Amino acid sequence: MAIDFFANIPTITYEGPDSSNELAYRYYDKDKVVLGKRMEDHLRFAACFWHTFVWQGSDVFGGGTFNRPWHKGPNDSAAAATKREVAFDFFSKLDIPFYCFHDIDVMADAHNVTEHRKFFAEAVDHLETLQASSGRKLLWGTANLFSHPRFAAGGATNPDPEVYAFGAMQVRDALEATHRLGGSNYVLWGGREGYETLLNTDLKRELDNFGRFLSLVVEHKHKIGFKGTILIEPKPHEPTKHQYDFDTATVYGFLKRYGLENEVRVNIEANHATLAGHTFEHEIATANALGLFGSIDANRGDHQNGWDTDQFPNSAEELTLAMVEIIRAGGFTDGGFNFDSKVRRQSMDAVDLFYGHIGGIDTVARGLLGAAKLIEDGRVDAIKAERYAGWTGDLGTQIGALDLAGIADLAVEKGLDPKPRSGQQERLENLINRFI
Amino acid sequence: MAIDFFANIPTITYEGPDSSNELAYRYYDKDKVVLGKRMEDHLRFAACFWHTFVWQGSDVFGGGTFNRPWHKGPNDSAAAATKREVAFDFFSKLDIPFYCFHDIDVMADAHNVTEHRKFFAEAVDHLETLQASSGRKLLWGTANLFSHPRFAAGGATNPDPEVYAFGAMQVRDALEATHRLGGSNYVLWGGREGYETLLNTDLKRELDNFGRFLSLVVEHKHKIGFKGTILIEPKPHEPTKHQYDFDTATVYGFLKRYGLENEVRVNIEANHATLAGHTFEHEIATANALGLFGSIDANRGDHQNGWDTDQFPNSAEELTLAMVEIIRAGGFTDGGFNFDSKVRRQSMDAVDLFYGHIGGIDTVARGLLGAAKLIEDGRVDAIKAERYAGWTGDLGTQIGALDLAGIADLAVEKGLDPKPRSGQQERLENLINRFI
Amino acid sequence: MAIDFFANIPTITYEGPDSSNELAYRYYDKDKVVLGKRMEDHLRFAACFWHTFVWQGSDVFGGGTFNRPWHKGPNDSAAAATKREVAFDFFSKLDIPFYCFHDIDVMADAHNVTEHRKFFAEAVDHLETLQASSGRKLLWGTANLFSHPRFAAGGATNPDPEVYAFGAMQVRDALEATHRLGGSNYVLWGGREGYETLLNTDLKRELDNFGRFLSLVVEHKHKIGFKGTILIEPKPHEPTKHQYDFDTATVYGFLKRYGLENEVRVNIEANHATLAGHTFEHEIATANALGLFGSIDANRGDHQNGWDTDQFPNSAEELTLAMVEIIRAGGFTDGGFNFDSKVRRQSMDAVDLFYGHIGGIDTVARGLLGAAKLIEDGRVDAIKAERYAGWTGDLGTQIGALDLAGIADLAVEKGLDPKPRSGQQERLENLINRFI
Amino acid sequence: MAIDFFANIPTITYEGPDSSNELAYRYYDKDKVVLGKRMEDHLRFAACFWHTFVWQGSDVFGGGTFNRPWHKGPNDSAAAATKREVAFDFFSKLDIPFYCFHDIDVMADAHNVTEHRKFFAEAVDHLETLQASSGRKLLWGTANLFSHPRFAAGGATNPDPEVYAFGAMQVRDALEATHRLGGSNYVLWGGREGYETLLNTDLKRELDNFGRFLSLVVEHKHKIGFKGTILIEPKPHEPTKHQYDFDTATVYGFLKRYGLENEVRVNIEANHATLAGHTFEHEIATANALGLFGSIDANRGDHQNGWDTDQFPNSAEELTLAMVEIIRAGGFTDGGFNFDSKVRRQSMDAVDLFYGHIGGIDTVARGLLGAAKLIEDGRVDAIKAERYAGWTGDLGTQIGALDLAGIADLAVEKGLDPKPRSGQQERLENLINRFI
Repeated sequence: MAIDFFANIPTITYEGPDSSNELAYRYYDKDKVVLGKRMEDHLRFAACFWHTFVWQGSDVFGGGTFNRPWHKGPNDSAAAATKREVAFDFFSKLDIPFYCFHDIDVMADAHNVTEHRKFFAEAVDHLETLQASSGRKLLWGTANLFSHPRFAAGGATNPDPEVYAFGAMQVRDALEATHRLGGSNYVLWGGREGYETLLNTDLKRELDNFGRFLSLVVEHKHKIGFKGTILIEPKPHEPTKHQYDFDTATVYGFLKRYGLENEVRVNIEANHATLAGHTFEHEIATANALGLFGSIDANRGDHQNGWDTDQFPNSAEELTLAMVEIIRAGGFTDGGFNFDSKVRRQSMDAVDLFYGHIGGIDTVARGLLGAAKLIEDGRVDAIKAERYAGWTGDLGTQIGALDLAGIADLAVEKGLDPKPRSGQQERLENLINRFI
Repeated sequence: MAIDFFANIPTITYEGPDSSNELAYRYYDKDKVVLGKRMEDHLRFAACFWHTFVWQGSDVFGGGTFNRPWHKGPNDSAAAATKREVAFDFFSKLDIPFYCFHDIDVMADAHNVTEHRKFFAEAVDHLETLQASSGRKLLWGTANLFSHPRFAAGGATNPDPEVYAFGAMQVRDALEATHRLGGSNYVLWGGREGYETLLNTDLKRELDNFGRFLSLVVEHKHKIGFKGTILIEPKPHEPTKHQYDFDTATVYGFLKRYGLENEVRVNIEANHATLAGHTFEHEIATANALGLFGSIDANRGDHQNGWDTDQFPNSAEELTLAMVEIIRAGGFTDGGFNFDSKVRRQSMDAVDLFYGHIGGIDTVARGLLGAAKLIEDGRVDAIKAERYAGWTGDLGTQIGALDLAGIADLAVEKGLDPKPRSGQQERLENLINRFI
Repeated sequence: MAIDFFANIPTITYEGPDSSNELAYRYYDKDKVVLGKRMEDHLRFAACFWHTFVWQGSDVFGGGTFNRPWHKGPNDSAAAATKREVAFDFFSKLDIPFYCFHDIDVMADAHNVTEHRKFFAEAVDHLETLQASSGRKLLWGTANLFSHPRFAAGGATNPDPEVYAFGAMQVRDALEATHRLGGSNYVLWGGREGYETLLNTDLKRELDNFGRFLSLVVEHKHKIGFKGTILIEPKPHEPTKHQYDFDTATVYGFLKRYGLENEVRVNIEANHATLAGHTFEHEIATANALGLFGSIDANRGDHQNGWDTDQFPNSAEELTLAMVEIIRAGGFTDGGFNFDSKVRRQSMDAVDLFYGHIGGIDTVARGLLGAAKLIEDGRVDAIKAERYAGWTGDLGTQIGALDLAGIADLAVEKGLDPKPRSGQQERLENLINRFI
Repeated sequence: MAIDFFANIPTITYEGPDSSNELAYRYYDKDKVVLGKRMEDHLRFAACFWHTFVWQGSDVFGGGTFNRPWHKGPNDSAAAATKREVAFDFFSKLDIPFYCFHDIDVMADAHNVTEHRKFFAEAVDHLETLQASSGRKLLWGTANLFSHPRFAAGGATNPDPEVYAFGAMQVRDALEATHRLGGSNYVLWGGREGYETLLNTDLKRELDNFGRFLSLVVEHKHKIGFKGTILIEPKPHEPTKHQYDFDTATVYGFLKRYGLENEVRVNIEANHATLAGHTFEHEIATANALGLFGSIDANRGDHQNGWDTDQFPNSAEELTLAMVEIIRAGGFTDGGFNFDSKVRRQSMDAVDLFYGHIGGIDTVARGLLGAAKLIEDGRVDAIKAERYAGWTGDLGTQIGALDLAGIADLAVEKGLDPKPRSGQQERLENLINRFI
């Protein structure tokens, strides 16, 4: 390894809740069996390249604060190789099974199509080697169709077909690389698939181009024999004023429109959920109800700030509610918890990357432990089941067999005068707090 | 008429922009032909019963301030009749063609199913007479499945099937009344079709019950021969924490799920759009792109306050953008502009109801005039068309015939290096301002 | 007692975290000593009249669902007496030391000044008796200057001086009653002290009238010898578009403007903090920094809904952060935790009032326990102190003695090139999670 | 001039509302006299360096799209000189009287204190020459204490006194340069004067350091004889989680705390107002009521997006309301309208900079024309005056002379029963629309 960036940091292990070691897990005990499955298999943690190794600590009002060794010169093949090595060292020291990347995260900067393909291929070769030597696996790959100026007006929804074609090249290559690297999923986040102003936007054409693009991706996946899941990541806006994949319910309609609802699932990000006006658990429950639940981008937003802050999850309360919904959705098949989280711009020390991930991992693990207790306890589920019991009774059954007039007549004949019943929200909230 | 509530107020007529009469229209000239159609036929204005005649001026922190004559005692048959007469006098004095109502808005308070049907029938008879004598028509009817305590946990999504049946009775009767009264549309607003907490909510069951309910309504519509349009009115939340008909894109997915996308359209409310994180014109453009555009609930929200303020529209700028999208959607067929707007709680004088509606009507009319000029001018449309011109050129055509790998190969072979082009947003915004 | 509304509910006692009794405290152990003080003395819990005994379960879209015995007829002297008795039974069964009220919460409905004074005096006599017999005390009293239609345009800021005078009468009487009942504080919440539109508002005159009103209240307090604290409760808006007491920082400026910063403190409500764009703990920390910390209205908002939901606190995480700031502010002197929280409209059973309060009380108690552990641990405070250590070193001391040019010259002479240092946010967040 | 970047663009002149020239003013007629003053003297327009010449078109999710000639290499002395020349050519072609800058906007990149002072001095010399040759003047100067990594934790509020000293050097030099260049104001925007997390923040110490810093700046201003106004620019957050200068009311309290309320005024930005939960006109009216109105940063936000979008103003409706409040505040003395606005990232053509500014200038000018008409018409002011008339009547006068008990007794003796009166909001909104 060219540099030993994390030289002073040990591999992180489980030491239990009472450990005073800040570089240990207090809840994430990978081999512990919870609801019949090892924690590692439940949670399928991944760390990401972009926030953790590519981002330099800049924001809209100021430059990078991180000053990592591989940030100092141009991002050429040597720098990219160093970054990849350091990243795999990090994944190994965290002892989590997976990682995620965008094509341009892992490669040298390219100035044209030829360089793009060359540098990306170079990177994929290296990733294959690093996977083998480290035992780490790819949770998902993706292509970045939003950072380069050519994508200012979108990738698959760009008014310029040249950009669409360039994007197709990147996605084809990234999908094939994901397949070769044994990735479990392939993700599409439509960062600039949206609009800045309706004044210059042909909404219908852009949606149709976007729908066709996705259809072609699905078709290609089958052609090459990729067995993983194709995922869309909803977000309501930012960087665009409006993004087409606004939230899970919107993505569902989009998939139905283009006949893809059995081919594609969602990768739900906590901060994107809140930006869309939903709770994190709402998005998971909705995905489950609509048959779309795929994977999770773990992070949190700031309820007082209206942009994507991508902070590490640190609320066991929120994660318990989210884990309950994930378990109700049957847990992950191909998906997992990817930390699409970034340390704050002021957290510029190498060890801060560990604090961020350790805190996030333990918070999610604590959520799983709480959710398991809640489900094993059974009271919450029983209260809910009781609330809907009428639908499996006589009247519920009758209603299922009648038309509108028939049901209306029933109400008249029986002189129905239904009384409101307590929803017991406060009681349920108290019960939840027993498991956190 | 039992009382002449608006005794001192004349019928409102068009007097032109320079009129100093505050009780006259300055822009709404019903017979003026704009883009080949009379303004009255373009805009199809309606006033509503609930905000204007039922609401007493209360809010969460204080009691009613309006103290109308029909509010003073119990809402019995006599009071309800007075209210209906005053309302029709108002519709006539505004000289707008349509009105809208919920079942319970127009009838005496009922204490059971029998009374409900009796008092509603009484009201419908009277409305029929009032329509005939006044020449006013029904834009849409609806049933209120959210105000009575029995609907605290929803109507069609209630955990209790008795409530569902009660709601079916109300909707059946309101739909049939709408049919009898020659209504152009029938609306369903799912005010409490949503949840307060996921902890006690079976999301999938509620969605399925809701979907079936809507299917039964559509089926009944055909049975009775109602030719009008069935409309869903999206809203993201309030009174519930989360409402299932969140926005137009969500409603689209819901309709597709239950196979109703060709049967049902949306009634878009400006304030509901902004509560959902969208602009008013976004919701119209989305409905148009998805083939769902139906009708409009005209009002506006307050960008600093996070609840449904239902203020009268007063921004010609916003209405111009909205009217452009409505015209692009082909204008109204069955729909129209219903003022789901209420005067402020401090505007307790009878004349304030006129100021509110006159201001709203003139704002919408001004929006139509601006939109027509913009469309006749053609520059905005030309700039947009030019932006997408590549899609009808060689490359765009080629892309339409290739698969993902084919398109990707094209990018490689041609060495594509697309340059970003100006979206000209500021230029377009300046152009728009020429037409307001 | 006329009715035994809570007949089946026992007095709530501490049973510890492992108790399976849902009608027991799991964390609130009133005699347990934490940081040198009994929990009861730390937290000084109060329940309120308005949400818990006056509100009928209505919202903007629907009528009351609670149907309490004292809601069934007119709110006359007998009904008001029943309500007071039931309330004191509730306070006693919760076994918390305090309660709070608005004048009109506790009395029969009045139709003029004379009745107002008579019915209020009647109520105060009864409260005095009930306090004596139950051992419960008054945390604070207040006057309601926002619910009656006469206050539609405000109380102390009303354009009509008659309303100002009416309000002065209510506040004088409520302040004197609070004094007589041994209240610890007197609160002013300016629910309608704000504006709906700037178009009809003389901002400066309203602020000056408001400032003088507060000065008169302070003067009167001293005249009558009331030793308690005068509190202002900040809120940014709702019911008004804009409320003058927007947040703690705004209230500070207002008090300074009228020379009252040493006479008045703030009563901070969690949900008002979030509506103003702040965290709950931010408002407490700000009040502490500005010397204004007084008391707390305990509740929580819903981050997805933009109105005052006044839910019961249920996040030990949030309360731990809040309790840390309260302890840093020196804890309460006159203040306490008043539950300005309401059960959901669907929680219409009597027992739901207990679930709500028990959950809230335990959450706050858990927050205190966590905060105490954090402070005793000392690591968080040490990290913070270390971060500012430079200010007590040489350079910090020098800066304190120089003018701008002197400091600037120092930077030049020393060739200062300060390096950013890690703020360790993620580490601190992990530490916090050890104490929850 | 090294390059003629705007070679094809003529000087922008007034051509009137009917001009079809998109590169002409339709409303801004600088010599037209409105309310007794030339438009140029009323509005005192300025363009800014940062958004228009420094920003490269990057955002959080992507790199720069603008690719200006002076962006291509390092920002050395030659590149900075080119930028300054192009900027002055732009100011001249817009034919507006003023410009604004941060120190680092106009100079070559510095790597230490010595270079900073050298390159800044070099730039100031050049600016002096360019001012003389172009006839353009400096509306205000400022120092950038937020972009360099050293300011990650703030400038005047930094935990590290070295950073404070470095900031003092920059501010001293920028203030003296502003003085030398004849600037009308000096601005302090506390971009990172706030916190990311309370966990590591000593709120009181930071506020005190911030207050002392401002006091030193004021003292230095007097020492050097600078007669311009010192301005603080409020913003609630972004880039920080919370910024100390949250809004105008907060700044007022801050100034009172440190005894600076007669020395410092506010520079109000439209987009900052809306981020803080206020309307633009609210902030102006508040500044006027508190005696703090100084200057304006003209732009607008996006009501659906929660960050600082800094778009060009394009709503004559909003600007009319803002101009009414500015006129009520007596108009500008030292202040003016600075376009702290940026073209969209997709508007990468040179001409887009003109479209943006022309649209903004015309919108503000239209606002002035509308406001003048409204004020000359007098009806709005008369309705407001009538609303408060009671305060100059008998009762209002009596109240002014009595204490709380005296006023309360008056209410009792007179048996006051005030009736709510209409606030006439809808009527006023209609009146406003007559002047836009």
